[in-house]
Amino acid sequence: MARGRKIYEGKAKILYEGPEPGTLIQYFKDDATANNAEKRAVLDGKGVLNNRISELVFTRLGGIGIPTHFIKRINMREQLIKQVEVIPLEVVCRNVAAGSIAKRLGLEEGTQLPRSLVEFYYKKDELGDPLVSEEHIGAFGWATAQEIDDMVSLALRVNDFMAGMFAAIGIRLVDFKVEFGRHYEGDSFRTILADEISPDSCRLWDMETNEKLDKDRFRRDMGGVTEAYAEVARRLGIIKENENGSGGAEIVSIKGDK
Amino acid sequence: MARGRKIYEGKAKILYEGPEPGTLIQYFKDDATANNAEKRAVLDGKGVLNNRISELVFTRLGGIGIPTHFIKRINMREQLIKQVEVIPLEVVCRNVAAGSIAKRLGLEEGTQLPRSLVEFYYKKDELGDPLVSEEHIGAFGWATAQEIDDMVSLALRVNDFMAGMFAAIGIRLVDFKVEFGRHYEGDSFRTILADEISPDSCRLWDMETNEKLDKDRFRRDMGGVTEAYAEVARRLGIIKENENGSGGAEIVSIKGDK
Ligand SMILES: Nc1ncnc2c1ncn2[C@@H]1O[C@H](COP(=O)(O)OP(=O)(O)O)[C@@H](O)[C@H]1O
Ligand SMILES: Nc1ncnc2c1ncn2[C@@H]1O[C@H](COP(=O)(O)OP(=O)(O)O)[C@@H](O)[C@H]1O
Ligand SMILES: [Mg+2]
Ligand SMILES: [Mg+2]
Repeated sequence: MARGRKIYEGKAKILYEGPEPGTLIQYFKDDATANNAEKRAVLDGKGVLNNRISELVFTRLGGIGIPTHFIKRINMREQLIKQVEVIPLEVVCRNVAAGSIAKRLGLEEGTQLPRSLVEFYYKKDELGDPLVSEEHIGAFGWATAQEIDDMVSLALRVNDFMAGMFAAIGIRLVDFKVEFGRHYEGDSFRTILADEISPDSCRLWDMETNEKLDKDRFRRDMGGVTEAYAEVARRLGIIKENENGSGGAEIVSIKGDK
Repeated sequence: MARGRKIYEGKAKILYEGPEPGTLIQYFKDDATANNAEKRAVLDGKGVLNNRISELVFTRLGGIGIPTHFIKRINMREQLIKQVEVIPLEVVCRNVAAGSIAKRLGLEEGTQLPRSLVEFYYKKDELGDPLVSEEHIGAFGWATAQEIDDMVSLALRVNDFMAGMFAAIGIRLVDFKVEFGRHYEGDSFRTILADEISPDSCRLWDMETNEKLDKDRFRRDMGGVTEAYAEVARRLGIIKENENGSGGAEIVSIKGDK
């Protein structure tokens, strides 16, 4: 599939014009950044794994009626998506205290939250993606009240579905971040799920050992980052069980695969 | 009026048991703190001015039907109040970007906000009073949905009233912080305005010169703090015009007064 002009290069992905108007190609890089891009690295094979994991999750979410931007995977690093006007908010859903909320509210990491929480962060690297409340979102016009409602209820459905999906493979869904966009359909806009869902954007803990299987391994310099992402892919059935023991050989083998 | 046992000593005030059950005496100290009590000073006469200013504002707010804890002023530093169970939230209402919101959202200080904003901060010194959203308030049970609604609508009424009151004396109400409490009445709780409203808890800018007449003079080491508070008191008619020119003599004179 011919990809067009590069439209945007972000921290982890590149967007190209797609083959049809209203489509884009989303290319998953191996680049990792943390702490507002202060820390950077290239993690061989990460992009390939995230492309596959995100494909699986978006496809399954589509299956329960959640509208998403995903059209199809093109190759190991690229997927075809519907172009949207991204709502400039990172929507975070949390089940267990970890990361910023633990620090911010003085909760011990690992504490079950009294209920699942949906938070909004204003997507603005220069400001370090600050937490905002619905008041700010409304006042600055980042989203309408209807869009806020849509995002909250979609995030909670995504949370329920993913909590179940990960529980089935021995993984605790601690939290995740999603982005939504406005998709023009007919003569109105619909709020649909965009961006990606992968170990870059979720906190995933092994249910038995509490081992982290997500980007915190990178943020906290724990090592074994791609190996952990591969473990998630393996449990999801994306990577075969017998490609397992060879210290990441299967990642290397898919890595060159464009 | 006999004051009872000391119940709580905070950064700016002390609470004593009051003469009747369900009452407290609120004593205004001269202590000033900023940056989460990293910066400290004693500002001669501040407590006296805040006691008087807060008395006037609470009395007038009571006059438009806003329920408050204020009963009466006892002397230059003390007022009798109704005891409440304080809701652990600082409720901030903003009309113009200044202070933390300017930094947080990358707005130039002095920019008119698109509309008046009500924000909630979790009142917890150890955590630096973090901004929270209604999600957090609900999930952690800091206030009920009804109380949140009450606080928002009371804060907006206080804002409208105070914006008018200060406009009348050439002062722009940039923002202010209030606290609310649960007051037991009959057999149910009512959300009432508590704590204080003074230049310690408001941003007040002279409309002509933009001169700051509030605690930012202390936070930003601008000097003339008590003089600015006295100017507010003077314009409100609390301090006489002819006590004006003497570089704060009137403050010194009321300072020793208990
Ligand atoms: N369907 C879509 N249409 C348009 N833009 C999208 C879509 N899905 C995701 N995006 C945007 O593409 C970018 C993905 O690249 P990424 O590396 O994550 O960027 P960033 O560094 O801005 O987070 C993000 O800015 C995201 O908001
Ligand atoms: N009516 C009231 N009943 C009980 N407590 C109150 C009432 N009004 C204010 N308070 C509390 O009294 C304290 C006032 O003292 P202050 O010096 O402001 O304390 P702090 O350092 O905790 O802000 C605050 O903690 C405030 O929440
Ligand atoms: Mg991104
Ligand atoms: Mg206080």
